[in-house]
Amino acid sequence: MKELEDRIRSDGAVKAGDVLKVDAFLNHQCDVALFDAMGAEWARLFAGERITKILTIEASGIGIACVAARHFGSVPVVFAKKAPSINLDGEQYVTTIYSYTKQREFPVIVGKRFLGPEDHVLIIDDFLANGKALEGLVDLCHLAGAEVVGMGIAIEKAFQGGGDRLRAQGYRVESLARVGSMDAATGSIEFL
Amino acid sequence: MKELEDRIRSDGAVKAGDVLKVDAFLNHQCDVALFDAMGAEWARLFAGERITKILTIEASGIGIACVAARHFGSVPVVFAKKAPSINLDGEQYVTTIYSYTKQREFPVIVGKRFLGPEDHVLIIDDFLANGKALEGLVDLCHLAGAEVVGMGIAIEKAFQGGGDRLRAQGYRVESLARVGSMDAATGSIEFL
Repeated sequence: MKELEDRIRSDGAVKAGDVLKVDAFLNHQCDVALFDAMGAEWARLFAGERITKILTIEASGIGIACVAARHFGSVPVVFAKKAPSINLDGEQYVTTIYSYTKQREFPVIVGKRFLGPEDHVLIIDDFLANGKALEGLVDLCHLAGAEVVGMGIAIEKAFQGGGDRLRAQGYRVESLARVGSMDAATGSIEFL
Repeated sequence: MKELEDRIRSDGAVKAGDVLKVDAFLNHQCDVALFDAMGAEWARLFAGERITKILTIEASGIGIACVAARHFGSVPVVFAKKAPSINLDGEQYVTTIYSYTKQREFPVIVGKRFLGPEDHVLIIDDFLANGKALEGLVDLCHLAGAEVVGMGIAIEKAFQGGGDRLRAQGYRVESLARVGSMDAATGSIEFL
């Protein structure tokens, strides 16, 4: 998606440790007009698919998923929670994800009332790198007996391999910007 | 806002400890059509005000704020982060909030690049109870020299006093549903 690639080039920054900072428009400050265009593009890509629910994970995926949902007939968005709180009671599906950015494992939870065998799920998230977060969301769908229709990703760091592993498992992964390589020294970013 | 009050009555649940569970449509599963109607209502209430940015806090506020932003000319949404991560470098405004639901204090952070003296800020959040989260967001605006235009809240638990305290400090607080009392034993909810 050219609009997103252009934005990454103009407002993103490559940092040491394979970090691509896009906090100016994607995951701290949010450009909701861009989110809307991303939603329209995923709707175009997944046209004809039956989607009853959008699943994402807190926190950065929530805004993107909620704005995108408008393009899917305003289907409900469910966001998986990263830690239990006293507000989250009842029965839950639980899995565990290792986060490289947070450098720890954490439980990920979805209330059983909000995901079930009748659901056809589009998973949406801001980043796909090693794929651990997405694999956790797929786990939750499997625990619920829900069908994973596909994944709509804003930025895939393709050189980290998570997207290819998910595609090899048969999942349809639609990443709007696929970074083939990037260089913290020069700031250069190459898209596939 | 009648639509929100009706929804709280039909799909909300009163739990012990002054907990109002609205995870079926507000803060776990998200009804984005309802979020859109809420955004339209805040836009009506704050019509004529100059708003350059919407500020919220992760995680539950993000979806509501991003959907609502469309009604404010798609101004940028900034969400304050609850914990530092290695993706969050650079200079930040930091304050501390005590969360009763998480039962601990945590730092709340906004990148200095995303909030400044030129900003006229509408603060949006899902809940207003004791007001600690909102006071933290106000702190961040003050640290940045930004003007707080007002606060758009989905559900105010008015009996917990946070809203009245903020109004007494001169802030304009527009809560779309104000719960005057609720009873976990009977499940009853009374709106103001």
